[in-house]
Amino acid sequence: MTNAATTVDTLCINTLRTLAMDAVQKANSGHPGTPMGLAPVGYTLWSRFLRYHPEHPDWPNRDRFVLSVGHASMLLYSLLHLAGVKEIDAHGKRTGHPAISLDDIKQFRQADSKTPGHPEYRMTTGVETTTGPLGQGCANSVGMAMAERWLAERFNHDGQVLFDYNVYTLCGDGDMMEGISSEAASMAGHLKLDNLCWIYDNNTISIEGHTELAFSEDVIKRFQAYGWHTLHVTDANDLQALSAALETFQANTGAPTLIVVDSVIGYGSPHKHNTAAAHGEPLGDDEIRLTKAAYGWPQDSSFLVPDEARTLLRDALHARAEPLYQQWNQTLARLDPQLADELRRMRAGEMPEHWQADLPDFAADAKGVASRAAGGEVLNAFAQQIPWLLGGSADLSPSTKTNLTFDGAGRFSADDYSGRNLHFGIREHAMGAIANGMALSYLRPYTSTFLVFSDYMKPPIRLAAIMELPVVFVFTHDSIGVGEDGPTHQPIEHLTQLRATPGLLTLRPGDANETLELWKVALAQTHRPSCVVLSRQSLPTLDRTQYAAATGAAKGAYVLAGADKPQVILIGTGSEVSLAVAAYEQLKGEGIAAQVVSMPSWELFEEQDQAYRDSVLPPAVTARVVVEQAGPLGWDRYVGQTGAKVVMSSFGASAPLAKLQEKFGFTVEHVVKQAKAQIQLTRH
Amino acid sequence: MTNAATTVDTLCINTLRTLAMDAVQKANSGHPGTPMGLAPVGYTLWSRFLRYHPEHPDWPNRDRFVLSVGHASMLLYSLLHLAGVKEIDAHGKRTGHPAISLDDIKQFRQADSKTPGHPEYRMTTGVETTTGPLGQGCANSVGMAMAERWLAERFNHDGQVLFDYNVYTLCGDGDMMEGISSEAASMAGHLKLDNLCWIYDNNTISIEGHTELAFSEDVIKRFQAYGWHTLHVTDANDLQALSAALETFQANTGAPTLIVVDSVIGYGSPHKHNTAAAHGEPLGDDEIRLTKAAYGWPQDSSFLVPDEARTLLRDALHARAEPLYQQWNQTLARLDPQLADELRRMRAGEMPEHWQADLPDFAADAKGVASRAAGGEVLNAFAQQIPWLLGGSADLSPSTKTNLTFDGAGRFSADDYSGRNLHFGIREHAMGAIANGMALSYLRPYTSTFLVFSDYMKPPIRLAAIMELPVVFVFTHDSIGVGEDGPTHQPIEHLTQLRATPGLLTLRPGDANETLELWKVALAQTHRPSCVVLSRQSLPTLDRTQYAAATGAAKGAYVLAGADKPQVILIGTGSEVSLAVAAYEQLKGEGIAAQVVSMPSWELFEEQDQAYRDSVLPPAVTARVVVEQAGPLGWDRYVGQTGAKVVMSSFGASAPLAKLQEKFGFTVEHVVKQAKAQIQLTRH
Repeated sequence: MTNAATTVDTLCINTLRTLAMDAVQKANSGHPGTPMGLAPVGYTLWSRFLRYHPEHPDWPNRDRFVLSVGHASMLLYSLLHLAGVKEIDAHGKRTGHPAISLDDIKQFRQADSKTPGHPEYRMTTGVETTTGPLGQGCANSVGMAMAERWLAERFNHDGQVLFDYNVYTLCGDGDMMEGISSEAASMAGHLKLDNLCWIYDNNTISIEGHTELAFSEDVIKRFQAYGWHTLHVTDANDLQALSAALETFQANTGAPTLIVVDSVIGYGSPHKHNTAAAHGEPLGDDEIRLTKAAYGWPQDSSFLVPDEARTLLRDALHARAEPLYQQWNQTLARLDPQLADELRRMRAGEMPEHWQADLPDFAADAKGVASRAAGGEVLNAFAQQIPWLLGGSADLSPSTKTNLTFDGAGRFSADDYSGRNLHFGIREHAMGAIANGMALSYLRPYTSTFLVFSDYMKPPIRLAAIMELPVVFVFTHDSIGVGEDGPTHQPIEHLTQLRATPGLLTLRPGDANETLELWKVALAQTHRPSCVVLSRQSLPTLDRTQYAAATGAAKGAYVLAGADKPQVILIGTGSEVSLAVAAYEQLKGEGIAAQVVSMPSWELFEEQDQAYRDSVLPPAVTARVVVEQAGPLGWDRYVGQTGAKVVMSSFGASAPLAKLQEKFGFTVEHVVKQAKAQIQLTRH
Repeated sequence: MTNAATTVDTLCINTLRTLAMDAVQKANSGHPGTPMGLAPVGYTLWSRFLRYHPEHPDWPNRDRFVLSVGHASMLLYSLLHLAGVKEIDAHGKRTGHPAISLDDIKQFRQADSKTPGHPEYRMTTGVETTTGPLGQGCANSVGMAMAERWLAERFNHDGQVLFDYNVYTLCGDGDMMEGISSEAASMAGHLKLDNLCWIYDNNTISIEGHTELAFSEDVIKRFQAYGWHTLHVTDANDLQALSAALETFQANTGAPTLIVVDSVIGYGSPHKHNTAAAHGEPLGDDEIRLTKAAYGWPQDSSFLVPDEARTLLRDALHARAEPLYQQWNQTLARLDPQLADELRRMRAGEMPEHWQADLPDFAADAKGVASRAAGGEVLNAFAQQIPWLLGGSADLSPSTKTNLTFDGAGRFSADDYSGRNLHFGIREHAMGAIANGMALSYLRPYTSTFLVFSDYMKPPIRLAAIMELPVVFVFTHDSIGVGEDGPTHQPIEHLTQLRATPGLLTLRPGDANETLELWKVALAQTHRPSCVVLSRQSLPTLDRTQYAAATGAAKGAYVLAGADKPQVILIGTGSEVSLAVAAYEQLKGEGIAAQVVSMPSWELFEEQDQAYRDSVLPPAVTARVVVEQAGPLGWDRYVGQTGAKVVMSSFGASAPLAKLQEKFGFTVEHVVKQAKAQIQLTRH
């Protein structure tokens, strides 16, 4: 077989290009230039290399195609259309419809269409990950490649191969410039992921103009420094060269591969090719006509898919994938039943039957334990029951206590991909996005770092929420409890940030037993990421014979202690729950009826019915004090406009914690004083 | 002169080491290992190369020393102590005290000391920037080096040199792994900043263990790919090799320099050297004794500064800097008076006398203009009056409208460092930290990108707030107004995040004239960063003869329109102000007395006195509706627990804006309905 372009190849490629041009024009919004430039790359990859079954787009061993240049979404939609990919709905059912019909393409960027501006996971069959924010897709793809290595170790046995897929990522100048991709590439090289291929669309045009304005590094040399194989294709329209490069990738071992492809943005457009004008706006009707003429395309056509192009891609994919798919199912049928059940559960997002077995129970202990330490114990208990729960830290596991320490947990490395302890290095941003990529690949990943560094990984946290991925983000050192490390290391606004993010659970347990309950909540999620927020400092383990059971934590807030008709409600979260309890005990000693509400999660509480919420925070009791070693924003909702907030109104400071608590008012005396003032205030 | 270590050199180096060991031990908290390993580097740089006048640490042409490894703060404090640097207080006055006394070192990490856990700008004389969150110092130093190039272009004339300082940065493995440093390094190479020297402490130990766990790239090759000169010193204790490398840096032209220094963390500690145990905890009394013995140091000494070491560093610095300092002042005295006045104002944080001259005035216009476009016009007007106002975008200036378009604004590049338009490339994180570095160097920088990408640069925004730097962060495309680009590009939680950050101004103007007023507020800040949050879509320019003057915006919130005794208050911000006005007009037509409050800044409003706040939001009027195309968190404070919130309770979607506004309830009809329901509710 020759790899040079045939007439029908060109026809398919120009179909991809013109569909993108027409869709963007019809929407009067979008990005035509990159699909026009990259169409030959997408076409060559899909028609000649991708192992992808159009009728089984959920085949676990499919090659993954990640469009990190998410703005070029029309390229992906056109490929899915020409590939004849069949739709699978949110419940995993085959609908019989195409994943993307021609009508869907005509609805590009319209309300409730399957063709939104950027590709959205769960919205469109065949979209492997939501992309758009630059660099994220690249890092997701590293997670997918890591997942493949892990899955292969777990499920391939005795020469029976269930997992050997490759991950192909289309990236652009933005991906190359964003720091997250640098982090991810360094990690991929370190882990020698030879199943990973990034294809860099080197079109030299960014939004402000030629990339030379801001970008003159030697990308190939940089990736060699990361330990990657590198290849250079000097003409995106040279299908033979593209094919040769992809063949080389497939033969490469011991390292990921970067293929730099020199392309022309807006290829074929007489006036806009190779200009920033082709990037993010419609070409205009006149220019489209001229461009179609340049392609030898009917100028007056619109959304034209020539008959000769209609089936080629689909047939090519089918012919390559069908025997592999059949064989895969035969292999699966021979798989050890326990492993088969495991894989079924992983695909369905189900937990093992006994995932809540052998959990620790923390005895009352006034001295107590840091919730990070309790968290580590709880995590290890769950991880022993859930073989596909794995994760790690951005070089802080001795502090975040997230290491899996039981026999067989192991370390994930280039020498042993079966390990479950991941060393992300000091790369929080990539860590988050890699975890997302793993969650997209049937695994249950967790990450960990200090809460203040959630700032370094907010974009992937947000994307986990948008994609509804049940990643668990562990954040320890969650307040001025950090102490001497000072304001740069003491989170203030971070709880608010996480609580403000839609679709995200923020869980801040008050003691060891709440930690257990909330880790359970996090792992029970199937469509929502969680942040488990833990203390550096020791917290008393509350005596649950004296106070309410910790199971209440799963409702977001519960009455931990107190009188039936309280004069004042003390609300605490995390490390401040025990402070609220101490204040309550002092008030009780003085004959004042207080009530303590532990409120580890606003989101869970808001999901309870009104009756429950009113039972926890009775509207009649307006004397309220919240105690939280974090910023005040949002607490008015629970303490009302007259309630007292014992919170941080500034950045912290470097000093031993006890000094800081005194300085900022986190003492029993201060809370008691505020409680009394509230009673006084609401009495009038 | 030989560069080899003399006995007194070793004495000084061991003084630096033992002070760090003793201070960490006394604090029972901190990081001894890196100061112990890097002491020879710090000592060689300071004693033999740094142009720094201990009595004039505010000399504008001093070399900058940036400790990006902020956890090694004791190295910096010890250097400042041995250098005899004199204190300058917050008002720029010389106090006569040392910047760091031995007593200050004994107060390491204690409340209100000058020696906090990580170095804090404004807290300690000689600390050039607040560091600790990894990578930030590296990127700050790029901003400082860029500032030097710009200052040199502006103030060096006719062979008279006022600016030719170098910037030296100590960085570690974490800095090398963090994406922000990759972004910053790529940019520094692109801009050929030959005044910049990063010294990489290659100690191969990170918190989880040997860096080989996660980091195996070829750092030297990577930096060569960025266009840097690279050097390798294989023994941190080889003062001759260090000196040779620093001499080579000083002779290098056309590129920044990376010096990789192989060092031993915890050098000299018999049991903890070259282990993670030396990183972040005290060595322990016994190990300290053994380590002192290994140094030939009195084992029972504590905070010992031998007489021979007391003056050496100070005298060396003084001898090198004094003639340069004298000459600099003579050059300054000959400087053109207008430029001299300019430099004086820059140093004092003052604006030019007529900085508010020739500002635009936007006429009423129902069709209006996007606030990003008005913002661009306003910015250009101010920039023409303020020569040291400069900035740019992370490759989005055609969209954020932040380009300076007047004659002479120019483009900052390796060919012309006098330009004021900065092309940051697609590197939001580095952009923020580079802007901080420029603000630390007398300039007034602004940055710009889309609001959703504030997530990519939150860490430097936070540090600008901690450091009290008046950087202006422009964020456009500030809501679902983004439209077709969809949820990945539509901010929801971001206003909340910014509002939750202490010490930060968040400004969201409602029309063109408010945009002018709020840019003015941002530029008038001397100790606070601002976020100027602007719309993608057109906003009506309100008729200020009919509604209140836009000057009210500077108070954070003001009554824009309405009755004296309103039945209901409509609160809007940014693009929703005109929606609130439209609802108000309809209610008025129906005989309902409403009031519109434009509320562009919570922070400014909270600074007003109670009387003013009550005049804008009268406590008696509890029927309230807020309209903001963003998440709800925090609005309870202003609408109360019974008020209505027309806000986003989920992520957005990809569709034309009008469709989205209909879908999510941002229509006149819906706001009117909510207003009427509020009146109904509060009547009972």
